[in-house]
Amino acid sequence: MSASLQQLAEVVGAQLKGNPEQTINRVFPIDLAEEGDITFVANPKYLSKLEECRASAVIVAPGIDLPGANLLITANPYLAFAKILTFLQGEPDAAKGVLPGAHVADSAELDELVTVHPGAVVGENVKIGAGSVIHPGVVLYADVEVGCDCILHAGVIVRERCRLGDRVILQPSAIIGADGFGFAPDGSRYYKIPQVGIVVLEDDVEIGACSCIDRAALGETRIRRGTKLDNLVQIGHNAEVGEDTIIVSQVAVAGSSKIGNHCTFGGQAAVAGHVTVGDNVTIGARGGASGNVESNQVLSGVPLIPHKEWLKMTMSLPKVPEMRKELQQLKKRLAELESLLKEK
Amino acid sequence: MSASLQQLAEVVGAQLKGNPEQTINRVFPIDLAEEGDITFVANPKYLSKLEECRASAVIVAPGIDLPGANLLITANPYLAFAKILTFLQGEPDAAKGVLPGAHVADSAELDELVTVHPGAVVGENVKIGAGSVIHPGVVLYADVEVGCDCILHAGVIVRERCRLGDRVILQPSAIIGADGFGFAPDGSRYYKIPQVGIVVLEDDVEIGACSCIDRAALGETRIRRGTKLDNLVQIGHNAEVGEDTIIVSQVAVAGSSKIGNHCTFGGQAAVAGHVTVGDNVTIGARGGASGNVESNQVLSGVPLIPHKEWLKMTMSLPKVPEMRKELQQLKKRLAELESLLKEK
Amino acid sequence: MSASLQQLAEVVGAQLKGNPEQTINRVFPIDLAEEGDITFVANPKYLSKLEECRASAVIVAPGIDLPGANLLITANPYLAFAKILTFLQGEPDAAKGVLPGAHVADSAELDELVTVHPGAVVGENVKIGAGSVIHPGVVLYADVEVGCDCILHAGVIVRERCRLGDRVILQPSAIIGADGFGFAPDGSRYYKIPQVGIVVLEDDVEIGACSCIDRAALGETRIRRGTKLDNLVQIGHNAEVGEDTIIVSQVAVAGSSKIGNHCTFGGQAAVAGHVTVGDNVTIGARGGASGNVESNQVLSGVPLIPHKEWLKMTMSLPKVPEMRKELQQLKKRLAELESLLKEK
Repeated sequence: MSASLQQLAEVVGAQLKGNPEQTINRVFPIDLAEEGDITFVANPKYLSKLEECRASAVIVAPGIDLPGANLLITANPYLAFAKILTFLQGEPDAAKGVLPGAHVADSAELDELVTVHPGAVVGENVKIGAGSVIHPGVVLYADVEVGCDCILHAGVIVRERCRLGDRVILQPSAIIGADGFGFAPDGSRYYKIPQVGIVVLEDDVEIGACSCIDRAALGETRIRRGTKLDNLVQIGHNAEVGEDTIIVSQVAVAGSSKIGNHCTFGGQAAVAGHVTVGDNVTIGARGGASGNVESNQVLSGVPLIPHKEWLKMTMSLPKVPEMRKELQQLKKRLAELESLLKEK
Repeated sequence: MSASLQQLAEVVGAQLKGNPEQTINRVFPIDLAEEGDITFVANPKYLSKLEECRASAVIVAPGIDLPGANLLITANPYLAFAKILTFLQGEPDAAKGVLPGAHVADSAELDELVTVHPGAVVGENVKIGAGSVIHPGVVLYADVEVGCDCILHAGVIVRERCRLGDRVILQPSAIIGADGFGFAPDGSRYYKIPQVGIVVLEDDVEIGACSCIDRAALGETRIRRGTKLDNLVQIGHNAEVGEDTIIVSQVAVAGSSKIGNHCTFGGQAAVAGHVTVGDNVTIGARGGASGNVESNQVLSGVPLIPHKEWLKMTMSLPKVPEMRKELQQLKKRLAELESLLKEK
Repeated sequence: MSASLQQLAEVVGAQLKGNPEQTINRVFPIDLAEEGDITFVANPKYLSKLEECRASAVIVAPGIDLPGANLLITANPYLAFAKILTFLQGEPDAAKGVLPGAHVADSAELDELVTVHPGAVVGENVKIGAGSVIHPGVVLYADVEVGCDCILHAGVIVRERCRLGDRVILQPSAIIGADGFGFAPDGSRYYKIPQVGIVVLEDDVEIGACSCIDRAALGETRIRRGTKLDNLVQIGHNAEVGEDTIIVSQVAVAGSSKIGNHCTFGGQAAVAGHVTVGDNVTIGARGGASGNVESNQVLSGVPLIPHKEWLKMTMSLPKVPEMRKELQQLKKRLAELESLLKEK
């Protein structure tokens, strides 16, 4: 949909400079934008690109002036960009109810304002709140609870008794509540430990495609409010991830670990089992927490060390073969000196 | 379901101390257990927690006495815990046959005692044994064979001609028999090598969510009896994994490699292609086998070294930048000594 | 199907030595081949195995003679093996149209010569070209375009507006067009950035099982002609991968990165966000590109260094604990020499 620049200024609470009547149809990148587009500059180093930019308006931070241009001035241009993008998408489609080809158990309790697409399977006693959309091929096992305004994309599977809060977004084939990986040695074989717990995803959680959140052995695995997981992430049974934490693709959090609030884990990072990570911890890509981690740190490597030290370390490791040679030469020269002095 | 303590003692072959009539409803963790629960202590360091524990019975190892408490005494409390948990779950649901909304080819041969849920698709000539459950959205391509008492969770896909033994458990979206990754260079392009082999999963194998076991180019990829794979694991074409081996999340085993029996691979570990790993090999998290590995070792790192050495190594690597500086200082001091001695 | 050796020689353009009438039923490995099989020797070290080989014909490189054997002689035996395997598979099944149990929107435009299997869901305005096969459980969201002769295996999900070229192969549960991972900080919380771009997969692309190609925030994520991705690979939003590039299992390419043509990435490798990798770059298993990479290199490690240096480095790192001790001893011995000289 379209909007006037004035409308958009109100949506994001920005100061408007220029023509409030200017019609905006799209948000578009600075180098591709055309007439009718709005673009944004979050990073000052891209300011020079604005000279050739054909957009009809630009979202900028305070202190930037572009004579003759239509501007939305706001302290956080990136956030304003996201909010305008959302606004221009318009309202989500109206609820369509249970569509033909969907399989819904008689005992399921669905709000009237849901959409359940063809090929979706909704089990016994499942509850789904208003505004939620269940895409094709989603499978909800018995006794699952889905809150309001959730989006469960195609291929999502939520196993028995797991619970989702409101506004939870599950990308395609996210797997919620598969059995945790637990086996008791029984002689030389393994005996499966039934995983009778559940998974709880709190409000505003988003889980990426093909990410797996295992159900607890006993009790629950819990992802707290506002936390976002990227694709192909593994969360082990009985783990707990705090609020507003960001976990990038292919991270693994092993069983029974506890991650704090406002953490950020880079891609392919890992947390060992039964480990506690505090709040505001940033772990760099492929970093590995093998023990507890105190709050308020930026760490990398295995074992984790301060990120800056890790950078230095990785730069110096390729010198080790040369260092070994130098060390041997020093030993030889030193031994020569020692024997020389002995003679004297 | 519930059971008397006497019944549970018989289920696990434990010695009972206390009231055999005590009713037990649940297994629960030591710090959350209530009246009617049984809990367990596998690790002596948690014994102190028992004083405040409200459980009605405790599974313990021999030599532990708790005056006044109901005890099940057994050499392996963790295994007993798993067996009691299984027992209290009760029998699996009775077979329901092919439910409305399932798509089963006329040529498929299903035992009477199977359950095929809505949205599952069973291809031509598929065979499924008694007691097996095919959850919603499972797809079995033509000529697949599934043994008895298997559980194929929602979203599982088994491609053409692959074979599953008895009591195989596939967690949601486990992918069995996708094409192996094989391409022949044809000038600067790649020509796809048809992957005409299969996958065989032997009895009692469990495969985690979104794990991928590729079909062989020719012949078969095989996972042997009792082996358990966690989520998001990759097994390449023509690989072979032995019996009772444990492979944790996000491990990759490349094509044509052969893993022995009773191995354990930590999370994100990897095995290169055409490599043989012996029996009883433990590879730590993120370890990488780039060449053959002899039996009976505990290894970590890339290349693999004994785990204890690897621990020492990882602790010392952050010192390398400092070591470089020291080395330069030593060189300088040594050169000064050398010139001093020359003068004399 | 079967063929005469003469036919196969023509299929691959090989020189035939021996009996052109020999019937060939199968391609099979050298040590398992039987009467009626053809096998191949791509690696001279396996030539000795031919003596005991029972195959009826062998594909070999020029310069190899086996008296009495039927030979197909060609410069690239591995490629010839792949082409003969393809030929013996015969033609793909004839198109079956939309099968009962498939859900196809009225507005979708399907060529007559497609096959849509039961349980597949084809959304509004989807277009599918001739020869394409949509397996059970595939979900195509609205406005998706699929070219000709594509194979979309079970569980594949392609989200709204994404476009596939011709002869694209998607292994089971490949996820095309999930939301990119983008959130704008909004105080201590995160605001979701709508991902309104798409994914384009060009002709002859193959994507592995459970691999995820995220849709762009704005614009497109693009995988160029002939590129092949293995299983469980992550491609972030707005990334671009060039032509004829090979990406092995569990690799992650972060958002907005640009990979060139004819690259090869080993398993579990990674590319950071906003990075450019040139053409003909090979990155070893678990290598990590944290910055731009020039063309025509073979690299490994984090940071990337020439692969040969990396091999040396990894062999020497386990010596670091010993080197630290030696360094301390040298310091001590040097100090002793220094004080000795001072005294004199």
